[in-house]
Amino acid sequence: MKYYIVFQNENALYYECNYSCDNAIFLKLGSESYLFTDSRYEIEAKSSVKDAEVVIVSDLLGALIDKLKKSSVKKVAIDPQEWNLDSFRRFKESLTLKIKYKPAFSHKKRIIKSAQEIKYLQKAVNIGKESFKKIAKELVKRRGVDEQHLNFLAESILRDYGKRELSFEPILAFSENASKPHALPTKRVLKSGDLVLLDAGVKYKRYCSDRTRTAYFDGETLSFKKRQHFSKKRIQKAYDTVLKAHDRAIAKARSGMKAKEIDKLARDVIEKAGFGKYFVHSTGHGVGLDIHEMPYISSRSDTVIEDSMVFTIEPGIYIEDAFGIRIEDMVVMRSGKAEVL
Amino acid sequence: MKYYIVFQNENALYYECNYSCDNAIFLKLGSESYLFTDSRYEIEAKSSVKDAEVVIVSDLLGALIDKLKKSSVKKVAIDPQEWNLDSFRRFKESLTLKIKYKPAFSHKKRIIKSAQEIKYLQKAVNIGKESFKKIAKELVKRRGVDEQHLNFLAESILRDYGKRELSFEPILAFSENASKPHALPTKRVLKSGDLVLLDAGVKYKRYCSDRTRTAYFDGETLSFKKRQHFSKKRIQKAYDTVLKAHDRAIAKARSGMKAKEIDKLARDVIEKAGFGKYFVHSTGHGVGLDIHEMPYISSRSDTVIEDSMVFTIEPGIYIEDAFGIRIEDMVVMRSGKAEVL
Repeated sequence: MKYYIVFQNENALYYECNYSCDNAIFLKLGSESYLFTDSRYEIEAKSSVKDAEVVIVSDLLGALIDKLKKSSVKKVAIDPQEWNLDSFRRFKESLTLKIKYKPAFSHKKRIIKSAQEIKYLQKAVNIGKESFKKIAKELVKRRGVDEQHLNFLAESILRDYGKRELSFEPILAFSENASKPHALPTKRVLKSGDLVLLDAGVKYKRYCSDRTRTAYFDGETLSFKKRQHFSKKRIQKAYDTVLKAHDRAIAKARSGMKAKEIDKLARDVIEKAGFGKYFVHSTGHGVGLDIHEMPYISSRSDTVIEDSMVFTIEPGIYIEDAFGIRIEDMVVMRSGKAEVL
Repeated sequence: MKYYIVFQNENALYYECNYSCDNAIFLKLGSESYLFTDSRYEIEAKSSVKDAEVVIVSDLLGALIDKLKKSSVKKVAIDPQEWNLDSFRRFKESLTLKIKYKPAFSHKKRIIKSAQEIKYLQKAVNIGKESFKKIAKELVKRRGVDEQHLNFLAESILRDYGKRELSFEPILAFSENASKPHALPTKRVLKSGDLVLLDAGVKYKRYCSDRTRTAYFDGETLSFKKRQHFSKKRIQKAYDTVLKAHDRAIAKARSGMKAKEIDKLARDVIEKAGFGKYFVHSTGHGVGLDIHEMPYISSRSDTVIEDSMVFTIEPGIYIEDAFGIRIEDMVVMRSGKAEVL
């Protein structure tokens, strides 16, 4: 792809030219690159943008159209998921060139991570892991406090009280509330004997981490380690099944497999244990500048897994109004195998 | 407008049927209304949606297309700002009916607030005001602490430690950092003699508040009241000018005026005092379910102001690398005049 436009998507813009803001368009014209933005961002853009000319204008789309009119380009690629119809109608009506629709082209470019990107992702994972330890330490002191308050506490620790950005709003849910994969915090208080599910991630130099642990709170201690002992047999069985599915997918994933084969490695374990219908989502997703990107590790994905792809493995079992379990790690494919970050 | 679609915009969806989630489409077909969403939201949608039939499907757009095909409708209105091009291309290719483009039609419907909406907005304003007092109390104890940390403190108070949602990320900036209208928090610490700008709002039953105050910190006391005494003459002159512009716009705004006339009421004061080129934004914006909606109180807006519109009055003066001042209140038009909420 020699001629293309990145329209107002911050991570896609950053990937192209090392800078983004909430009002910018990037244009690639062969060996030339342009970043159109407005005067509010002039100073930052000019000092941060790499390998592109910064064009300061009030009407970004108008300037883009002018630039294309003056060029000899006959066709240009765009991602139709990025454009709103309003801008596109004006763009299309003003130009005669051919438009090539390339859905998710930025995500496709970004699916293989560089050594530098993997370093940043590893660092984000490390910070996330440390935060989980700190959160566990604080939670044991907060018996009787509700999920809303404890979600805020977890968020405060993950954000290091304002110094850091998160990959997404953390999910901290207890026992029956953990049975919704995207639980919202309630007034339910933390009690001895609760199951505690924490799904959270932080950003390091814009790169995301993502991690989930499910733990047992005996009223005195709480640890987000992988070995857990629950008081109820059924929960223990479900937990051990999820852990086995998680470990198997990581141990047996290979470069050259299709994503759906990796999904199956985890799903087979859960189905065999009789919990198949309670594993309601896919096994994982790519992680990078976006918290959800390619490859998607789902039962329908034919994407071929390659070295230097980074994605999550996160099987789960959700029994409505009873409990939910998920164990999630990020892996990188290296020398054909999956290594936990 | 008898036939229209609301596409995936949460506040526009909520306004139509008393419910929203992050995957839903609303269709109005004369006297019939439909909300298409997926099975994750079935329970909540069915218990909350008013005056519309809830349709649970995995392919929302497909179901919308089917419903339109089966109806006898010949044309349907959409907001081209809401649709992404990808969905629109599929929609358009599958149907032969006429599409009417109605930019911002939901915002246009929502420009006049009901008594109930004004009550909610007043409540949000009251909570916001109380939070400003609490923040001032905490800030005076935090001399030597940096903006990042104090932004987090302000956010924690506004969110009541996790119980409340915000209208937007608060802006808390000191002296020279306040000179950017959308300042990002830095490592700059709070010092005696600083100017302190706070711009923040909370939500009450989804309705937003928005408020800005600029105060002087003498090292011991800090209050976000309107009368302020700054140690530097130039800052005092700018402050008094902004306050005069703010008060004049509110005192002289009348229903029947164009929005640009209200902008001019404030802008004239600032220009006359010689600060014209430092007032770099418009005088205000509507507030409701969205933090920015109609009417826009700008120098180019011909919108005629009517009773029961709610908007901000927020003139400002920004002198690069020196200081920034903004004073903002929300007003409602009642019996032809602007009342501060």
